[in-house]
Amino acid sequence: MTRFSVTYRIFAPELAEAKVRAEAIALEQTVEIPRDVVPAGFIEDEILGRVEEIGSDGDGQFRATLSYSPHSAGFEIAQFFNVIFGNSSIQRGLRVVGIEPGEEMARRHPGPRFGIDGVRALCGRPAGGLIAPVLKPQGLDADDLARIGYLCARGGADIVKEDHGLMDQPMAPFRERVEKTAAAVTRANAETGGRALYFPTLAGQPDQLEGNIRFARDAGADGLLVLPGLLGFGTVSRIARDRELNMPVMTHPSFLGPYVLSPDTGFDHGVMFGTLQRIAGADISVFPNVGGRFGFSHAECAGIAHACRDGAGPGRPMLPSPGGGMSVDRAADMAAMYGDDVVYLLGGSLLRLGERIGEGIAAMRAALDAVRAAEA
Amino acid sequence: MTRFSVTYRIFAPELAEAKVRAEAIALEQTVEIPRDVVPAGFIEDEILGRVEEIGSDGDGQFRATLSYSPHSAGFEIAQFFNVIFGNSSIQRGLRVVGIEPGEEMARRHPGPRFGIDGVRALCGRPAGGLIAPVLKPQGLDADDLARIGYLCARGGADIVKEDHGLMDQPMAPFRERVEKTAAAVTRANAETGGRALYFPTLAGQPDQLEGNIRFARDAGADGLLVLPGLLGFGTVSRIARDRELNMPVMTHPSFLGPYVLSPDTGFDHGVMFGTLQRIAGADISVFPNVGGRFGFSHAECAGIAHACRDGAGPGRPMLPSPGGGMSVDRAADMAAMYGDDVVYLLGGSLLRLGERIGEGIAAMRAALDAVRAAEA
Repeated sequence: MTRFSVTYRIFAPELAEAKVRAEAIALEQTVEIPRDVVPAGFIEDEILGRVEEIGSDGDGQFRATLSYSPHSAGFEIAQFFNVIFGNSSIQRGLRVVGIEPGEEMARRHPGPRFGIDGVRALCGRPAGGLIAPVLKPQGLDADDLARIGYLCARGGADIVKEDHGLMDQPMAPFRERVEKTAAAVTRANAETGGRALYFPTLAGQPDQLEGNIRFARDAGADGLLVLPGLLGFGTVSRIARDRELNMPVMTHPSFLGPYVLSPDTGFDHGVMFGTLQRIAGADISVFPNVGGRFGFSHAECAGIAHACRDGAGPGRPMLPSPGGGMSVDRAADMAAMYGDDVVYLLGGSLLRLGERIGEGIAAMRAALDAVRAAEA
Repeated sequence: MTRFSVTYRIFAPELAEAKVRAEAIALEQTVEIPRDVVPAGFIEDEILGRVEEIGSDGDGQFRATLSYSPHSAGFEIAQFFNVIFGNSSIQRGLRVVGIEPGEEMARRHPGPRFGIDGVRALCGRPAGGLIAPVLKPQGLDADDLARIGYLCARGGADIVKEDHGLMDQPMAPFRERVEKTAAAVTRANAETGGRALYFPTLAGQPDQLEGNIRFARDAGADGLLVLPGLLGFGTVSRIARDRELNMPVMTHPSFLGPYVLSPDTGFDHGVMFGTLQRIAGADISVFPNVGGRFGFSHAECAGIAHACRDGAGPGRPMLPSPGGGMSVDRAADMAAMYGDDVVYLLGGSLLRLGERIGEGIAAMRAALDAVRAAEA
């Protein structure tokens, strides 16, 4: 059975110490017992992690690739990620910089159901950047949010996305909100002949999620926004793997910041907001854009976009979705940076337009079209 | 309605900048729109976060306490934590150092169902440290794991806990393993007259968790080990809040390391492994012990233990459970450090004893009793 591999950056003064630490990771992530107690046979030969390669990666840094057995990772995303970086996430000076699922884990976790082409087909936008205005603020009632959704769909949105802070609060309870907004977007589409999609934020206690997923689908939601940092990456996978449900998933980075912010722990930006999201099955991955309210650099954002769209996998290419401080003024720069296969989140500044919010979306569309025309 | 409050450590060169950042957090964590777009009335007065207090906290550091509305946090743990640190977790130079739920959120999330006294009552250990050997390694079959569970219960374990890496792998599928181990521990208890508890690791895809929780209860498991870093803190709460289920929860730190490892992001150790676990409803919180394989300091571990047991809440005091490198040799030091209300995890080194594993547990009990006798 093909093993999967994880590449770690180990911070250590010299190779000998990095090797010792790599062998310790091999134990920690699998059997979690001292080396001399590991039973011979199947456990030692198959289950125990294996250091496949280790070498220098710059001053005081080493790259170690370890392989693990699919038997160890089982069939759940939670256990797959548990083997990748469960306990070792608590070690200082250790960062995941690459994941190669291999044939067997790729079969168990085939990734995005829709991917770039699938999402484009759903919203009828075969080329050019996709525009996703965000319904907010928290505190509005369901009618007001649905009204904004209607105006956004009328204005030419590709995806009407809810703010990640809209969950199941009393001001706009999940089911009421989803029902009203789905109806509003459907009405707008009927009027324009367009195909704007509606992605509510999946809410609910764990034992309500199943019911809420089905409710959203039946009410006419086209996809779901999921917060893997709070609901777990397994929730993304549960939706992506459901053929009958057949809904695309957009993931949001809430609560995930500490995984990327320090260079010597967590995951590289592209692994967290690209690779892991793809393995879990997200079709669109939201992340904080360079130049917005968060401090991600140009290189980090480019790395995320690459990891989302890399033709080599894992699974189908997915859409990167930079958010935070996006505006018409930046459209040309953003199109130059991200190219065509991207979902632009348009946030709170659009609300300044009030009932004319659709004009803001139309302006963004015109700006993106101008970039494409100039390139052609 | 009583607002809840979160205290952040802000890294900034001067107070004026820290104040600007605190006001930005108030927006980011609630309405997530520019200040000038916040609608007057209910949203501005109630939903918008409020900077209640801000002051210096040492060189280049400031403490800011913000209050939020329970209307904003709703009724789910996910959304409560989303307001506490969702998007702001992606800001550099910002760390959560305290959470005060206040009356209303304490009512919605009353914390541990059992707490220290409840767990002690269940396992019939009114005083002294509790001993929890861990069933492993991954790769053994269900019969072998059940056999170790039997020997541990015979040897005087208070809690027979499964390794966090035992999920639903083919070598020892969750249901088979739980059934056999629960029966083995029950048999040992019948033979000794003891009351060792059995905590399997909750496994399954999100849509299997409900069934697996009930299966474990019906098969005779006494509590559940839950990995909130992978399954979400809501899963802890879902179990803790189920009066009919009535099972204690032990939480494990897998995948949570990056939240604490860097001093300028994430959560203080006590908040992550104490406060948040308590709010979610854990009765026992596992964390990496000082002097083990992980780099937590004495002060960090003491801070965690304090946050777990603080009589001021939130909710009932819970049991800290240091793990990693625990042994009989360290029993006296550990008892001096942690006192009585603690669960000692005994891991892989016990396996060296093979069929005599119970002797290792008895030796740990004798060492802890000796400390108590010396103190009395």
